[in-house]
Amino acid sequence: MKVKLANNYGFCFGVRRAIKLAESKKNGITLGPLIHNSKEINRLKENFNVVVNENIEEIKENAEVIIRTHGIPKQDLEKLKQKTQNITDATCPFVTKPQEICEKMSKEGYQIIIFGDKTHPEVKGVMSYCHTTPIVIEDIESLKEIKLQEKVALISQTTKNVELFSQIAIFLIKQCSECRIFNTICNATFDNQDSARKLAKEVDIMIIVGGKDSSNTKQLYNISKEYCDDCYLIEDYSELDKEWFVGKILCGVTAGASTPNWIIDKVVKTIEIY
Amino acid sequence: MKVKLANNYGFCFGVRRAIKLAESKKNGITLGPLIHNSKEINRLKENFNVVVNENIEEIKENAEVIIRTHGIPKQDLEKLKQKTQNITDATCPFVTKPQEICEKMSKEGYQIIIFGDKTHPEVKGVMSYCHTTPIVIEDIESLKEIKLQEKVALISQTTKNVELFSQIAIFLIKQCSECRIFNTICNATFDNQDSARKLAKEVDIMIIVGGKDSSNTKQLYNISKEYCDDCYLIEDYSELDKEWFVGKILCGVTAGASTPNWIIDKVVKTIEIY
Repeated sequence: MKVKLANNYGFCFGVRRAIKLAESKKNGITLGPLIHNSKEINRLKENFNVVVNENIEEIKENAEVIIRTHGIPKQDLEKLKQKTQNITDATCPFVTKPQEICEKMSKEGYQIIIFGDKTHPEVKGVMSYCHTTPIVIEDIESLKEIKLQEKVALISQTTKNVELFSQIAIFLIKQCSECRIFNTICNATFDNQDSARKLAKEVDIMIIVGGKDSSNTKQLYNISKEYCDDCYLIEDYSELDKEWFVGKILCGVTAGASTPNWIIDKVVKTIEIY
Repeated sequence: MKVKLANNYGFCFGVRRAIKLAESKKNGITLGPLIHNSKEINRLKENFNVVVNENIEEIKENAEVIIRTHGIPKQDLEKLKQKTQNITDATCPFVTKPQEICEKMSKEGYQIIIFGDKTHPEVKGVMSYCHTTPIVIEDIESLKEIKLQEKVALISQTTKNVELFSQIAIFLIKQCSECRIFNTICNATFDNQDSARKLAKEVDIMIIVGGKDSSNTKQLYNISKEYCDDCYLIEDYSELDKEWFVGKILCGVTAGASTPNWIIDKVVKTIEIY
């Protein structure tokens, strides 16, 4: 089976940076998984003894703590600082930005609208910087039920789809007299999405490699699905099923921003021998 | 011939206010026409001796001057103030707003983008409040040739089409990290456009009454044309042609924001006897 990789895929700047930081902090603890890829988290544990703690309560005094790429709520950071000064901030700088915008805009009296998944750690973090109660939405429908103010600020979870973000912006522009729109969708996300869209148009089957709880990976799957009927989201090569490839000629492969190359390589090599 | 009027048409708040002000300033002078309707301008001249001067140079010391609804450039206002203190500002408050936004945003370092016609007096006035050189565009195509900055502020001529404004906003959102979008399209314009759209869908012929150089009247014509093949823009009843109505059953009538009721009434009555 012939395999074609997307022009842009896999590790983004923020993930690459976070992994480097984690590798340099042997025996470190991350509050929640550093990135949304369980295989890579396991590798960090096996090779560097970097382990995951789910709650601040579990973390011991003066522990070596690494903040995950998605960031953590402001209140958690404050609690953490009372326990230890050994904190390495691996929050992606593209996530720090919406946190800062949220803080500033809510202080200035703008009604804050976040396009994102309110259960996602990144969004929980961003929300915590808001001085008022932000509105978190994933579609235009939910916006229709909300009483909008005259002045709104719109920001996005970094891994969201720019087309839907634009549609939400239009809805707001028509209702409000001032919309401050911050395109906080990261470039890597945008490039990976754009490449996935192009690739999906020309292949018979698309394999998207990434964590099942990874927001940007799910976006890649949804976008690919628009243009290619046969799309599969897998975490690694072991989930591949030879049956999927029967009668297909060209297979496209892309991967989420938290998927390391060693996982992608194995997937590509496995498909190539089908 | 049966006539149906649009739900919203004709005089807006700003025009009504300006005419009242002009009527109260007998023998006054307006710098450029008060509104874009030559018949109403003639009526003001005949009944109140309110006349139009095209240049500041023509205006005599201490003359009674009325600023047109569209506003005038900041520099012209300053020159005028050196000539006379008898100034009545009939600038529509909805036009004063984009002027103020332009001034403030350009001071704060935002690249200013104005959706409008740069030859229109309103836009000339708004541009003059900009501390930097604003970009004035009428479509997305012209934006593609421009080097955009990271932070942009978008405002609109008050009488423009909200759909195209939204499309321009989307283009900017995708390119720039912060877009401050001010929906300065006035509600009356929006309501008149919306009513024209609805009416054009159900009639056989549409008559749009208004000044040929009136921006909002032209928008009504363009919108109606999308839904009804037979659309005519006329300044008053004398331009009506009986031939247009042959074989038609229902005629829709709308009018620009600067069209007085006495002109619309005559048009409707003329069509009704066809």
